[in-house]
Amino acid sequence: MATMQTIHHHHHLHHNHHNTNRYPVIRAIQEIAIDAHPNQKTSSKSTRLAESLSNLLHLHIQGPAQKSLGNVCFEEKHDTPIASPKEDISDKWRDIHGSSDWNGLLDPLHPVLRREIIKYGEFSQATYDAFDFDSLSEYCGSCRYNRHKLFEKLGLHNHGYNVSKYIYAMSHVEVPRWLEKSHLLETAWSKDSNWMGYVAVSDDEESKRIGRRDIVVAWRGTVAPSEWYEDLQRKLDPIGPHGEAKVEHGFLSIYTSKSDTTRYNKSSASEQVMEEVKRLVQFYKEKGEEVSLTITGHSLGGALALLNAHEAASALPGLPISVISFGAPRVGNVAFRDELHQKGVKTLRVVVKQDLVPRMPGIVLNEGLQRFDDITGSLEWVYHHVGAELKVDVRSSPYLKHGFNLLGFHSVETYLHLVDGFHCSGSTFRSEARRDLALVNKACDMLVDELKIPHFWYQPANKGLERNAHGRWVKPKRDPEDIPSPIGEGHTLVVPLFLTDYVDVTTVVLFGI
Amino acid sequence: MATMQTIHHHHHLHHNHHNTNRYPVIRAIQEIAIDAHPNQKTSSKSTRLAESLSNLLHLHIQGPAQKSLGNVCFEEKHDTPIASPKEDISDKWRDIHGSSDWNGLLDPLHPVLRREIIKYGEFSQATYDAFDFDSLSEYCGSCRYNRHKLFEKLGLHNHGYNVSKYIYAMSHVEVPRWLEKSHLLETAWSKDSNWMGYVAVSDDEESKRIGRRDIVVAWRGTVAPSEWYEDLQRKLDPIGPHGEAKVEHGFLSIYTSKSDTTRYNKSSASEQVMEEVKRLVQFYKEKGEEVSLTITGHSLGGALALLNAHEAASALPGLPISVISFGAPRVGNVAFRDELHQKGVKTLRVVVKQDLVPRMPGIVLNEGLQRFDDITGSLEWVYHHVGAELKVDVRSSPYLKHGFNLLGFHSVETYLHLVDGFHCSGSTFRSEARRDLALVNKACDMLVDELKIPHFWYQPANKGLERNAHGRWVKPKRDPEDIPSPIGEGHTLVVPLFLTDYVDVTTVVLFGI
Repeated sequence: MATMQTIHHHHHLHHNHHNTNRYPVIRAIQEIAIDAHPNQKTSSKSTRLAESLSNLLHLHIQGPAQKSLGNVCFEEKHDTPIASPKEDISDKWRDIHGSSDWNGLLDPLHPVLRREIIKYGEFSQATYDAFDFDSLSEYCGSCRYNRHKLFEKLGLHNHGYNVSKYIYAMSHVEVPRWLEKSHLLETAWSKDSNWMGYVAVSDDEESKRIGRRDIVVAWRGTVAPSEWYEDLQRKLDPIGPHGEAKVEHGFLSIYTSKSDTTRYNKSSASEQVMEEVKRLVQFYKEKGEEVSLTITGHSLGGALALLNAHEAASALPGLPISVISFGAPRVGNVAFRDELHQKGVKTLRVVVKQDLVPRMPGIVLNEGLQRFDDITGSLEWVYHHVGAELKVDVRSSPYLKHGFNLLGFHSVETYLHLVDGFHCSGSTFRSEARRDLALVNKACDMLVDELKIPHFWYQPANKGLERNAHGRWVKPKRDPEDIPSPIGEGHTLVVPLFLTDYVDVTTVVLFGI
Repeated sequence: MATMQTIHHHHHLHHNHHNTNRYPVIRAIQEIAIDAHPNQKTSSKSTRLAESLSNLLHLHIQGPAQKSLGNVCFEEKHDTPIASPKEDISDKWRDIHGSSDWNGLLDPLHPVLRREIIKYGEFSQATYDAFDFDSLSEYCGSCRYNRHKLFEKLGLHNHGYNVSKYIYAMSHVEVPRWLEKSHLLETAWSKDSNWMGYVAVSDDEESKRIGRRDIVVAWRGTVAPSEWYEDLQRKLDPIGPHGEAKVEHGFLSIYTSKSDTTRYNKSSASEQVMEEVKRLVQFYKEKGEEVSLTITGHSLGGALALLNAHEAASALPGLPISVISFGAPRVGNVAFRDELHQKGVKTLRVVVKQDLVPRMPGIVLNEGLQRFDDITGSLEWVYHHVGAELKVDVRSSPYLKHGFNLLGFHSVETYLHLVDGFHCSGSTFRSEARRDLALVNKACDMLVDELKIPHFWYQPANKGLERNAHGRWVKPKRDPEDIPSPIGEGHTLVVPLFLTDYVDVTTVVLFGI
């Protein structure tokens, strides 16, 4: 009886209390999230809150005093390559893509799979690195580069993929602190939509190496984990035709919202991505090629990846579909998980043990109920994770600070660093790991001070101001070819642009597309 | 008797209590200083502290709600020149240089004087803009550019001056938070010394316009005003041969310290600057030219400017010497003030009414004692300001936030903006003011949000990291020609370098200098 009481108590909480102020724990987490900032002065407050929180949630977060530096050499080899050499995986791509649920490939982690995971992780990270976060930019919320330049600008052109389409999203329901908006009164593009990701396709050379034409969808997430905590009380909405599978309705709203009054979301993110994926699959299938779909994303982006995979699996039966997510929260109920499984979607969730976001939504509701899983499994308010998990541990890296760091534990670059150093559970950090350590501190403060890498270093010169011919400091106009345009993105060509020479937007307009 | 008691009480405080923790007010100011940071979260704490503080000091700081925006147009004219045209002042340079103590030129402010004040202010600001503050740089504490490139790099080459020497300083007594040091174990240049300023000379064209060869010494100060408050309890040291004139001993230590074990201070800042000034004066006097010396500096730099002027006036009798200081604290006692006056040094102190630093040292000691000035004037512990004052008011500018802002009120760029807009006391901001508004927010958050200028925008791309040929993010080596060298700076050539073609350091070494 005591057990059922507990369950009912939580059930009650979830459905009836929509006022966030009733949950001191949630508020506490939010405060930490807000405080996760370069300013050193706030860290003691964050630490104190984190300590109470970790006691409450039994997280057993290790303090910085316990980290073992050992004999690690902190001199980076600046003249070594940043990745292991590419090798031909055409004969084992199905296993790497998850056809057998990555059985036997994760622990120890197969070197080829490690390389592929990092590739997709860098595709996820690209959605942040290229995003215009500048609220004083008239293009705030868009991608800073056009799709033809994206990978080259970010140093990812060596992966052998070309971007074929940008995806935009809006949300009819309010998702707190989600949409990045310009503070300017007039913006040159859109105040309703954000650039939400892209579709890319492997080129001929990479396709040969990986044994098939790989279509990638990369979804942008959120940089700071703060907003997730407000989603705790949100409700589940049905997805798909049967009505049993349900997903968190904030995620679903971002994936499906559209409005004729907007410039970039006359069609929803779902419609944009599905149109492009179907077109590409058809195009390459007709050429007789093997085709796969790999959907990736971090945080919110990982949640959208699952919704996208669910839809794609229904629309394109027989197509090998995998999701590689990083620090993604729970998305839906058991029926959603089961449907994904039945449709053959393979999901590999990469999770940093110390990251709180993969415990969302439901961290408070579910963590204490672990032992009641069988009982609560059928209740719609219990969010479930799907698929295989690759769990990496901050404490495995001698290069990272181990003290509580909400932002750092959740950062894609921390994830990729730990995957790069992961051999098997319990083993020490791989000595052959070659990924550039400096990347970890791009947008957080996770590297040990001995490395002398600045924290939060990813920043434009003079916050984007440049001195003009008159000596005045002004925000320069964006390069015309990088100004987003619904005409260039909303419709498709019969021949994919990336197969021909790049056609600029003007030409596309002249051709009447 | 009550009066004398008060005085004795303060006297006692000053001499015997060297523990800063005994002064809650000082601590409060320090806390505000520390909190003056882009992080919005700390502003409410700062505001609260500021409010109690302003009540305590009767500063009557106006709150942000009271600012009157009026009909001001916040659209900057991006295509207008940033300065009024230069005009020939050769027939009135002595007045502009202060020969008559700027009588009749300050209120209303003479347009020609305004232009000159801004010129010297920009020379002061250059010592910050070019300083290497990066504690992860092996050249932390040096100038980022060699002296030949300095003005061009900072966009100041149009002023028509050439830098002839860099000045370095160290301090034997501990001046809290003064010396900027690299955190690296091994540095390529010096851990004892900091770049402290430079000597520059007007070129032929500018000399013709301003009626004489103008030698400028610009002294670097401190960016954040926090450290000043720790100086309150410090003592006065005698300066000069008579022993009556006394100055704050921290300032004097920076000006006079030297050590054979250092690379850059085998001679003191005083010796370095005096050697160069004497050389230049002799060189141009021998050519039959009229010569002036103008010493400028902000904050600590303004204090050093006074010490420098005091010494130069003794060493070079008859040379017209002026000090133009910005937000400088009090430096010495009445005898010091009188000696400067007797030696004919002309001092123009530009002061922002709301800036706390010009009230230092002695803000707490002196402010309440204003009416006892005549009685206390002869006591050595009372610091005195010298010379003429140009007082500008933050509230005169519709472009500035008027709420308490310790850092913003003290910033050189705020000073120059207010001088640019100053017509006469009580008048509104000059509508013809042309100085680039964006400059104000370089290293603070003072501009009203309507202007849409980012705050604290003066920053290098990616905190100085660059991607090398291997794709790794590394701190690049400094351009060899910008690496400081005591050989290139410590000694002088018979022919000033700037009169010939620029001679690079290698050549100088080969010539055996």
